[in-house]
Amino acid sequence: MYYLTIRQFARTLKNLDTVLGKAEAYATQRGFDVNNLLSARLAPDMLPFVAQIRIACDNAKMAAANLSGKAAPKHEDTEKTFEELHARIGKALAFIDSVSESDFAATTPDKPIKLAYPPNKGLRAQDYVLARQIPNFYFHVVTAYDILRQSGVELGKNDYLGELPLIDA
Amino acid sequence: MYYLTIRQFARTLKNLDTVLGKAEAYATQRGFDVNNLLSARLAPDMLPFVAQIRIACDNAKMAAANLSGKAAPKHEDTEKTFEELHARIGKALAFIDSVSESDFAATTPDKPIKLAYPPNKGLRAQDYVLARQIPNFYFHVVTAYDILRQSGVELGKNDYLGELPLIDA
Repeated sequence: MYYLTIRQFARTLKNLDTVLGKAEAYATQRGFDVNNLLSARLAPDMLPFVAQIRIACDNAKMAAANLSGKAAPKHEDTEKTFEELHARIGKALAFIDSVSESDFAATTPDKPIKLAYPPNKGLRAQDYVLARQIPNFYFHVVTAYDILRQSGVELGKNDYLGELPLIDA
Repeated sequence: MYYLTIRQFARTLKNLDTVLGKAEAYATQRGFDVNNLLSARLAPDMLPFVAQIRIACDNAKMAAANLSGKAAPKHEDTEKTFEELHARIGKALAFIDSVSESDFAATTPDKPIKLAYPPNKGLRAQDYVLARQIPNFYFHVVTAYDILRQSGVELGKNDYLGELPLIDA
């Protein structure tokens, strides 16, 4: 389950990368600088678009690291353009792709995963995935999507979900 | 994993119920009718708050039904007040609570799950959970949260995540 969750995070980040491309096409069509969207927020005390993307990437990266036991690369929060946000997503995906299914074999549901915050606290691996990383990851991806929708970018649910592996049923 | 995912949906719906209560407290404090929020949207071509809550409930309910093999109760989309939205969440929770872990024992990752749409199509149980129900469920919960945040309701990430079962680490 841990490996499958990480692979789904990777698919969602790829969908997010495509969503960024749709925002860029919209900006070109309307004749504004797409990078104006980096500071867009839904409320004055919510994080801006640029931070939503960074945190989504970090949630996926840290889940891959903590559940596989591999050290996560540090990615500095310095992006100022959509081009740099694409690169940030690309770096998260490269790390996730570097982790293989066998790296997760030693992770039992009860394995303690240490959190950066609060200090000296953690979660059992199962709780870490289900109650923290999954809801947190989608929080930031969806809020990024919501910011773009409110800014007028033409997006639909399928841009967020991506193509589903449908079968006859 | 299927049962644990459903239990997490239940926890998130309970957190959402608490978030509704915070919106009601805010409306009282500011002296407006909280039910004005039911029609709030982030964009004119997005669904309103009331629909976000209904669809979140239905995503959780349908996951519990499809993965356990139990028939889901039909819940009509008739809510016009926060009181009725609390009841809608309560009905989804009651159904989820009626499904026990053993009901999921026969669900293998490859089991075909038929979708309401597109017709005659479905997903393998594993894809249904990871690629469709989880992202969809959180999409609607987070968008509901985002609508309230933009409307001025004082909420934080912890209201969304709820209390985590922290351990020493």
